[in-house]
Amino acid sequence: MTALKKYQISFNPAGKTVDVLAGTSILDAARLSGINISAVCGGKGSCGKCRVIINQGNVSPVSENEVTLISSENIEKGHRLACSAFPQSNLKVDIPEVSMTDEFKLQLEGENPSVDADSPVKSYEVKIKPPSLREPASDLARVSDELKAGFGITDPSVDIYALKKLPALLRKESSETMVFMRQNEIIGFLPAGSSPAGIAVDLGTTKVAAYLMDLKSGKVIASAGAVNPQTAYGDDVMSRLDYSINQKKKPDTPYRSLSEVIRDLINDMTGKLVEETGITGEHVADMCIAGNTAMIHLFLDLPVEQLAKSPYVAAVDTSIDVKAREAGINICPGAYIHFLPGIGGFVGGDHTAMIIGSGIDRKKHITLGVDIGTNTEIVLHNPVKGTCRALSCPSGPAFEGAHVSDGMRAAKGAIESVRLTDREVLCKTIGDAEPIGMCGSGIIDTLAELYRLGLINARGRFDRDNPRIKQGEFGSEFVISEGGSGNGRIVITQKDIAEIQLAKGAIRAGIESLMEADGIDVNDVSEVILAGAFGTYINLVSAVEIGLFPAFPNAGYNQVGNSAGTGVRMALLSGKERKRAEEIALKIKYLELTTHKSFNQRFARGMSFPLEKQVADSID
Amino acid sequence: MTALKKYQISFNPAGKTVDVLAGTSILDAARLSGINISAVCGGKGSCGKCRVIINQGNVSPVSENEVTLISSENIEKGHRLACSAFPQSNLKVDIPEVSMTDEFKLQLEGENPSVDADSPVKSYEVKIKPPSLREPASDLARVSDELKAGFGITDPSVDIYALKKLPALLRKESSETMVFMRQNEIIGFLPAGSSPAGIAVDLGTTKVAAYLMDLKSGKVIASAGAVNPQTAYGDDVMSRLDYSINQKKKPDTPYRSLSEVIRDLINDMTGKLVEETGITGEHVADMCIAGNTAMIHLFLDLPVEQLAKSPYVAAVDTSIDVKAREAGINICPGAYIHFLPGIGGFVGGDHTAMIIGSGIDRKKHITLGVDIGTNTEIVLHNPVKGTCRALSCPSGPAFEGAHVSDGMRAAKGAIESVRLTDREVLCKTIGDAEPIGMCGSGIIDTLAELYRLGLINARGRFDRDNPRIKQGEFGSEFVISEGGSGNGRIVITQKDIAEIQLAKGAIRAGIESLMEADGIDVNDVSEVILAGAFGTYINLVSAVEIGLFPAFPNAGYNQVGNSAGTGVRMALLSGKERKRAEEIALKIKYLELTTHKSFNQRFARGMSFPLEKQVADSID
Repeated sequence: MTALKKYQISFNPAGKTVDVLAGTSILDAARLSGINISAVCGGKGSCGKCRVIINQGNVSPVSENEVTLISSENIEKGHRLACSAFPQSNLKVDIPEVSMTDEFKLQLEGENPSVDADSPVKSYEVKIKPPSLREPASDLARVSDELKAGFGITDPSVDIYALKKLPALLRKESSETMVFMRQNEIIGFLPAGSSPAGIAVDLGTTKVAAYLMDLKSGKVIASAGAVNPQTAYGDDVMSRLDYSINQKKKPDTPYRSLSEVIRDLINDMTGKLVEETGITGEHVADMCIAGNTAMIHLFLDLPVEQLAKSPYVAAVDTSIDVKAREAGINICPGAYIHFLPGIGGFVGGDHTAMIIGSGIDRKKHITLGVDIGTNTEIVLHNPVKGTCRALSCPSGPAFEGAHVSDGMRAAKGAIESVRLTDREVLCKTIGDAEPIGMCGSGIIDTLAELYRLGLINARGRFDRDNPRIKQGEFGSEFVISEGGSGNGRIVITQKDIAEIQLAKGAIRAGIESLMEADGIDVNDVSEVILAGAFGTYINLVSAVEIGLFPAFPNAGYNQVGNSAGTGVRMALLSGKERKRAEEIALKIKYLELTTHKSFNQRFARGMSFPLEKQVADSID
Repeated sequence: MTALKKYQISFNPAGKTVDVLAGTSILDAARLSGINISAVCGGKGSCGKCRVIINQGNVSPVSENEVTLISSENIEKGHRLACSAFPQSNLKVDIPEVSMTDEFKLQLEGENPSVDADSPVKSYEVKIKPPSLREPASDLARVSDELKAGFGITDPSVDIYALKKLPALLRKESSETMVFMRQNEIIGFLPAGSSPAGIAVDLGTTKVAAYLMDLKSGKVIASAGAVNPQTAYGDDVMSRLDYSINQKKKPDTPYRSLSEVIRDLINDMTGKLVEETGITGEHVADMCIAGNTAMIHLFLDLPVEQLAKSPYVAAVDTSIDVKAREAGINICPGAYIHFLPGIGGFVGGDHTAMIIGSGIDRKKHITLGVDIGTNTEIVLHNPVKGTCRALSCPSGPAFEGAHVSDGMRAAKGAIESVRLTDREVLCKTIGDAEPIGMCGSGIIDTLAELYRLGLINARGRFDRDNPRIKQGEFGSEFVISEGGSGNGRIVITQKDIAEIQLAKGAIRAGIESLMEADGIDVNDVSEVILAGAFGTYINLVSAVEIGLFPAFPNAGYNQVGNSAGTGVRMALLSGKERKRAEEIALKIKYLELTTHKSFNQRFARGMSFPLEKQVADSID
């Protein structure tokens, strides 16, 4: 028996090199070296998203699924699926931008929160008497004496890790010290003059936004956005849950858990935010996280087996407070993380945050809130009846570019808007770069234009008789861009259209199911709030034209950006807003779509394109 | 340069073998292999307690301090100090019983607590509805619903580690589950029918006693005693603090921290206690620990620099509650450890427990409580004036056999009582074994008898003209046992007597200082309570004869055994007793001896032997 050979793989443009044993896929090698490659299917070879280019060296023969998913032209150029290619020598591998998960259109920050800062964390500066042999009161006793004398605080408890820092602080700094408290618990001792900061985290399936805030003034000091690195283990929630479950069955696997992966990111972001602003991690005395139910389970390393199969039950979806260190987050020694409460099923604290942030719960008229993503959460607030209902529909990642031939996320080079003239295709790309793919808004535009010009019919079928419809390697297609200068052709195929139809069908059916449950129709809706990055960039006319939304004759549209980010910042700043979140979570009735009897009919109908064109009238 | 050689060292009777690099002392090798060898001085070569016998192999030449501390006869037999001998080949090493820290006279259990079980931990059995697609309420929400419906419990918080166990439990067991709660926090989910247990720990500098109790019935289910394994790193508190401080300065040292060492023991004891009784560690839903200030600091890995030097300030000496897992103790996922509050200086929660356990605080007459150890804690309760004072005096380890030529702990083979006739020495040993040394009670008896027969004078000097006083290798000595059958001679030297005089002088001065501070004299004291193992075995007549205690003409003596153990069991069982401990700790005035003006005079005087003999009259 001979030992397994080792190969060195260098990744570009990441500039990282990793040594792996023979038998390790390029995808796993990238993961091992911390490079995030898109892998929607979780590395099963079915999604075709983990495209890499072998620049130097020998790899295993092209597999069957690669033949299906990569054009022969590109295979000749060295294109491979990272999950299906195995090194047979040292390699140099390029990761095309389209496969990277790291470069994104910046998350809109949403409106700034307008709440009074009323953080559960307070700070008290006290002057501590030195101990003497005659009065050798303990360090904590001397602090408690001053807290009582100066601020009337009695019998505070103390976090053990905060306490560990006290003796050195009292002997290094001046006799003044700053005590951070959360309710009646001392959570940190800091040098005099320190001010408590907090971090609000909008923990999305795809993107993570973090806001460093001054807990006293309520101001955002710094903010940062990043891709959720779990994306490298599967784009959608279910792939990640499956990955996590399988990994736990094989505890010897060298891969990091999804919990570690996301905790590392939050620690990194925290480190950068505090470094930027000249404070220390210890000043971060509070954290508030909003995320969907699965993201929170993975973050806290809660069991997910029961969440991944019917009836999809969470371990917890109420709010929960966890010591940051016990969630692996290194901030102020005794700080907690507050996780916002979820509503039901997969509708989690991010949706609660979105409602707070956009103020849907306080609207005086019937309001529909939609947050489009891999799962699309929809809420219908009816103050007339005093009802509020929410649901989540499995819209899939098509609007995020996955399962679409030339789809991609909203990154540089993505086509974000499309107009068709009789002869031409007019595109705009993000960053005005050469087009390398299409993101959701571009895809919706394309479909609306194809339908407007009759190039597809109401069932989404191409008019094959039209000369603009070509026959490509994968059947009928419409060419958006012929490519050139190193970039490939960008097309939309019949199969792509079917994917979009599934996504829009689900969302449309969700909206209709909510209206039906509440006993209202499109005429009753006064406002439609579109939250999230995608909701902001979407062309509303196109969206109604393809039937993603019904036409609401009496509604105004409101594109609020990342209002989940706004909401979680509000909750970070204010105990009252946390209570408001509890009340919202308690009040909203969760509607489970799969048990809703008319959902399937509506879904099927929603996949079609609207026959009547009320579109222009319904958009203000 | 050549690599350092490695040697294999086998220890008997432990039966353990360890590989070490050349340059590692035998003491360090023993520590590395987990074998506890007495090392009062912390391995500096000055106490002579870490005696081992080299049975096979070559070691470094005999050092100067070994020549001083070991007789030439024994050096020839291969006796060495483990701290001063270094291997030069593979070795077989015997550890004589006298150097081992593992075999001890059993700790007396003290009186059984007579409190109503009123634990802060309660248990609730609930029947949980299965989830459905139509009502996919989270696992926690379904439990909370039943807690509310069945027991009126609203808005419980949940420990995150308890929560991690819930999904599997609900899917494995029947629909019933047992919820352990502490106040309003859920700390564990267990199979239906589980009953919460708790462990009370009397964490002594030398010995550790642990009691597994049923929190509902208040009964002791099992108990265990062990030597505090920190003893291998120094017998007294100061040596251990020094060791810990030095170790933290060299983080690369391979030795375990003193915190780890004691946590491991508590985990081991817990494991054995639960195994014995057929429950699991998860059933242990509460823990209560009483220990002196230094022991608690080391246990919790709190900084000790400020505690080890004047003015000897604790980080904390109030009560504190810490999640067991955060103190490295593996019991019920969300369980806490409650540390009893200390009184001041080194007078810690063990003394508070002793007061609760013996009921000193409730006595209607003036009561003196004495707990003799390396530090001796003394409390004077005066219900007439409503005062209560306590102090700690540095009595040193002489009564525990250290710093005395043939002293040893109260282990098998220790001489525990001595009577002198005109010709003979009558001894009784523990376990009726061949004598191998003298423990504290034997030492006190010997001094009392020597004084009674005029072999020493009031200043403790030997009457060299008496033929029973011999001149030995280390000066004047009195021979207790000539030895034989493999055991050496047992003698008491002038230097030994001086050590005992220091110890008794400190304790006597402490008692007198307390009486002076309270303005009372020996006639006012109605009861003397002697706590702790040593206080139980002591011969009271001898103790008064040598002047360890003043003669109290009107006092009854009460030898209560390990009442700290009783007290900590009471605190485990009852929230009321924890409050009582707080009140005691708050009320008792701590007297710092070193600042007490007449202490030094009293100390000097206390070293003498009493000239008037009121002894027999004062003992009832």
